[in-house]
Amino acid sequence: MFIAKNKVRMHDTDMAGILYFPRQFRFVHDAWEDWMESKGLSFDDLFKRMDFAFVVVHAEADYKTPLKVGDELEVHVQVIHLGNTSFSVGYKIYKADGTLTGTAKTVHVAIDTKHRHKIKIPPLLREALEKIKKS
Amino acid sequence: MFIAKNKVRMHDTDMAGILYFPRQFRFVHDAWEDWMESKGLSFDDLFKRMDFAFVVVHAEADYKTPLKVGDELEVHVQVIHLGNTSFSVGYKIYKADGTLTGTAKTVHVAIDTKHRHKIKIPPLLREALEKIKKS
Amino acid sequence: MFIAKNKVRMHDTDMAGILYFPRQFRFVHDAWEDWMESKGLSFDDLFKRMDFAFVVVHAEADYKTPLKVGDELEVHVQVIHLGNTSFSVGYKIYKADGTLTGTAKTVHVAIDTKHRHKIKIPPLLREALEKIKKS
Amino acid sequence: MFIAKNKVRMHDTDMAGILYFPRQFRFVHDAWEDWMESKGLSFDDLFKRMDFAFVVVHAEADYKTPLKVGDELEVHVQVIHLGNTSFSVGYKIYKADGTLTGTAKTVHVAIDTKHRHKIKIPPLLREALEKIKKS
Repeated sequence: MFIAKNKVRMHDTDMAGILYFPRQFRFVHDAWEDWMESKGLSFDDLFKRMDFAFVVVHAEADYKTPLKVGDELEVHVQVIHLGNTSFSVGYKIYKADGTLTGTAKTVHVAIDTKHRHKIKIPPLLREALEKIKKS
Repeated sequence: MFIAKNKVRMHDTDMAGILYFPRQFRFVHDAWEDWMESKGLSFDDLFKRMDFAFVVVHAEADYKTPLKVGDELEVHVQVIHLGNTSFSVGYKIYKADGTLTGTAKTVHVAIDTKHRHKIKIPPLLREALEKIKKS
Repeated sequence: MFIAKNKVRMHDTDMAGILYFPRQFRFVHDAWEDWMESKGLSFDDLFKRMDFAFVVVHAEADYKTPLKVGDELEVHVQVIHLGNTSFSVGYKIYKADGTLTGTAKTVHVAIDTKHRHKIKIPPLLREALEKIKKS
Repeated sequence: MFIAKNKVRMHDTDMAGILYFPRQFRFVHDAWEDWMESKGLSFDDLFKRMDFAFVVVHAEADYKTPLKVGDELEVHVQVIHLGNTSFSVGYKIYKADGTLTGTAKTVHVAIDTKHRHKIKIPPLLREALEKIKKS
């Protein structure tokens, strides 16, 4: 498991006074970026210099309590499935007081960036995913 | 069914060159706003002047083909479940050439805006939802 | 002058109940994308297939009346300066009732996408900019 | 002066591969939120419980070097003008290596939240602004 910190900002809220629901995926993706970075894999390198990438083919989220501007968050990231060409990541989002405010899941498929074909998860990424899966 | 038009903008993409996946929910919510508006229900009125609102408790999306800046979209909206206190909305997103690029579903719960309690879907909204369900 | 249509969405507002101020630049950039497209210049082509691009080096905005969700907008775009390596674009944002709600200006510099050097505005873009300047 | 930390995320970039320019104001506003919070003034309190607020009437930004995903930022915030009913805030944005990547300025006007009239800056806010101006 990997834990990322985040914070609800004005730009995450809408005129209903609380989080604009698609923005929960912002916390999810930021956490994913932090995790990748902690494994030495930057998105800038991935998309500009490497020959593979991975795209999101499915995303889902549950919302348990409303989030408001200023809320400090902890996002728990875990690899929940690791297949041949795809993998799934689960997220639990907690407020500073320990309340679970939401959960999410994303399914990713590895692709060849040139032809955008589905490919086997490259060893570099597989190793990183296996490590987090066990941790 | 209700059909809304939209367009992929620079701010919907990221440095991977295609749609930043959470932004598909932007098209979903924009379509939902257009539909509500077509029924005479503005979000501004709802949240500022009425005593009820509805919050998203679940959201999910599938991504079938990558979207790029400038793509013209058609979002098909349908009410797929209408319960006592909650309702579900389904979305199909098509490109101008008819390609289905993604689908989504959102589950909404009606609440009392003052106390944020779950309430029965108010008649005003129920009627509008029933009409779209049959159309 | 070029005129683009737009609409204030939930994702443009924040919990203060009105437009999150940086989002006025979203309307500005969308209008710019529409204008470019009307001249046969797509951003996808520019950044993926051509050898030049242009970056924003300065942006400014004035806010005259608050915008709320559902407001229909008309964005008037005009080239206000056309230099050797840079150009400036002015924007006026009106509500459907004719109220001027804000103005903006952006300054762009043409660059070589490979080395990110400042270059002379390429003929293709210069012609398009000259045409709009006179219109 | 107040210093806030931030980080460039995928959602801040666009398909041109670097920061989508309006998003620099996201770092500006996040820093402003952090500063307000450090003075015990939360935006949630301001807009939901207090009788005053302040709106942005002018914003401007200069861009000196492109920002890419993963860049760690330091935003320096300073009150540069403190008038009767308005105040101006200046921002300098640095990368971790000390490069100045951009500057920005916002002009704010205090308003009565009920009638949205311009009012004198309330003592609570004036004190906080004076403190930061001297620091």
